[in-house]
Amino acid sequence: MASSILSDCSSARLLPLRRALLPQRLPRIRPCPALASPRRLLAAARPQLLPRPPRMDSVPAAAASSAESVTVSADASAKVIDGKLVAKQVREEIAVEVSRMKDAIGIVPGLAVILVGSRKDSQTYVRNKKKACEAVGIKSYEVNLPEDSSEEEVIKHIASFNSDPSVHGILVQLPLPRHMNDENILNAVSIEKDVDGFHPLNIGRLAMQGRDPFFVPCTPKGCMELLHRYGVEIKGKRAVVIGRSNIVGMPAALLLQKANATVSIVHSQTKNPEEITRQADIVIAAVGVANLVRGNWIKSGAAIIDVGINPVDDPESPRGYRLVGDVCYEEASKVAGAITPVPGGVGPMTIAMLLSNTLESAKRIHKFK
Amino acid sequence: MASSILSDCSSARLLPLRRALLPQRLPRIRPCPALASPRRLLAAARPQLLPRPPRMDSVPAAAASSAESVTVSADASAKVIDGKLVAKQVREEIAVEVSRMKDAIGIVPGLAVILVGSRKDSQTYVRNKKKACEAVGIKSYEVNLPEDSSEEEVIKHIASFNSDPSVHGILVQLPLPRHMNDENILNAVSIEKDVDGFHPLNIGRLAMQGRDPFFVPCTPKGCMELLHRYGVEIKGKRAVVIGRSNIVGMPAALLLQKANATVSIVHSQTKNPEEITRQADIVIAAVGVANLVRGNWIKSGAAIIDVGINPVDDPESPRGYRLVGDVCYEEASKVAGAITPVPGGVGPMTIAMLLSNTLESAKRIHKFK
Repeated sequence: MASSILSDCSSARLLPLRRALLPQRLPRIRPCPALASPRRLLAAARPQLLPRPPRMDSVPAAAASSAESVTVSADASAKVIDGKLVAKQVREEIAVEVSRMKDAIGIVPGLAVILVGSRKDSQTYVRNKKKACEAVGIKSYEVNLPEDSSEEEVIKHIASFNSDPSVHGILVQLPLPRHMNDENILNAVSIEKDVDGFHPLNIGRLAMQGRDPFFVPCTPKGCMELLHRYGVEIKGKRAVVIGRSNIVGMPAALLLQKANATVSIVHSQTKNPEEITRQADIVIAAVGVANLVRGNWIKSGAAIIDVGINPVDDPESPRGYRLVGDVCYEEASKVAGAITPVPGGVGPMTIAMLLSNTLESAKRIHKFK
Repeated sequence: MASSILSDCSSARLLPLRRALLPQRLPRIRPCPALASPRRLLAAARPQLLPRPPRMDSVPAAAASSAESVTVSADASAKVIDGKLVAKQVREEIAVEVSRMKDAIGIVPGLAVILVGSRKDSQTYVRNKKKACEAVGIKSYEVNLPEDSSEEEVIKHIASFNSDPSVHGILVQLPLPRHMNDENILNAVSIEKDVDGFHPLNIGRLAMQGRDPFFVPCTPKGCMELLHRYGVEIKGKRAVVIGRSNIVGMPAALLLQKANATVSIVHSQTKNPEEITRQADIVIAAVGVANLVRGNWIKSGAAIIDVGINPVDDPESPRGYRLVGDVCYEEASKVAGAITPVPGGVGPMTIAMLLSNTLESAKRIHKFK
């Protein structure tokens, strides 16, 4: 049965397995039970719960606003946290706000994207961001520089956008060519326009009590937004973040902590990741290892946010591979209370949060409530 | 027996109990067993293990360098981590380096302290810092401003020290008078001279992989230094930090994480602090609640760093009170592998690390190795 093979959570068939990120002592891998493919599972489980949106200008701080909250249920399948649906809602709310702002003060939020080189994947990401901007009425500016540009040239363009009043957000598409120093370039982005939220000053303010960052990095902000919109209680809960990258794991842990969860961070040096993860009411997996988190890592009823997007071999797919998360969906969805699918979970939220940060920036700069 | 009463870990006799910091569901408090006072215990347990110093300019990153490492021993008493002794060693090493630098390039490190108002405790702290500077050959500069000074006046003095080449570290003594905004004032300190390490840019760099802060906040740096000098292994170990303040708990957690521990942060909203703490090989307690951490919170053989300094009622003391930590020393020292006493543990390390940061700053500014 092809589908049972395709949904096998054993890592034997994984494509580029990032060994550096793997915990040193992984539990013995058991094959995943035969199940329908995640895509079919997802279709069958389309959420009965339609999240109600909070106001966009206070998204991360908004209390859980969905009518129904996620509850523990060991026997039933987990609720599907539908990122595609939420991202669509968020984009619609942003479009309304952009239009309201334009009508009231004549200002249109602007996002500038700088792309260096001609990587196909980066070009696709930039095109998608541009499209998403257009769809909600945000003006986008794009600069394409050749692969062999100097750091100074990139920084010159950043400086120009820093002082351009029609630009409220600046994004440098990563990865940069190898001869460039990411840190020098990202630090050149004005802190008030750093919509990616990667500046260390933003991270520091995120870590500190009594301070707030100008911007929250988009992917972890998207994770929190999903938890909020699906009514997952965070305060006083145990949360485990798997992975500690600067762009997802670490800021996600800081956000959960700011929301008063008791947070543990599991990483490549953790000796018993499954045992620690099993204590968590909320899991955010962002380690980049396909199907790492098995069903027996998960506490019954936990909310699972799967940030991983990993290609695994799939001879039935026209592309020869398909995308799976860091969590073994088939196993986890039987134990968890709520879970994001891959694709269709966190993925669509990242661009939605980029738009949200750009709108927020324009509102702050122009003191528009 | 007076001593048994004095060493009682029940919180009944606590002086200013900071209720806001208490976990919501504290475990039932059992009276501490009758024991000699901590001071006597400490005298009896003076370390058999004499730590060997790493080089001062790479203190926090230095691998454990003590000849003997801390080992698990459930029956024996815990090793005493003697902060007074280590702080003395650190100060001696700094004195040697200051002298070497003066001889080689004619530069003497300088620390500027700004005190606003006339709080007795702040005056004492500032005096102690000045004395400590003098003892190691660091030049100290002091500005005393009246309580009713304006923010602008304080910032003017900071700006003057920022541009003074003989000053390598600037410290604003906290707390500031109520009419001042701490954030505005601390942010005015040049990031290159922020020897307290409280600037959000420093905290952000501390949180991020692949980045290093200019300075590590003194008290958490002191905690790490104690662990290093007593050969406590950190990589791959479970660590729990109790408390999440900007100046101790949060940066301590970031430091442990940078050293590859698996870190959990326990705070006032944590529902089962004792259960989580019991999983830790390393505990840093920095919550400001006398004797909060009982013996049954502690894993056998764990290393315990107690940052708390809390006054408790003591009719036998001439002052009417004595100081105890956040950890019930009498109980914990029977279970732990190593433990800091209060006083004489973390306390003396804070000023030693301030001197270390000032020396480090002067070396960096003058490119002296």
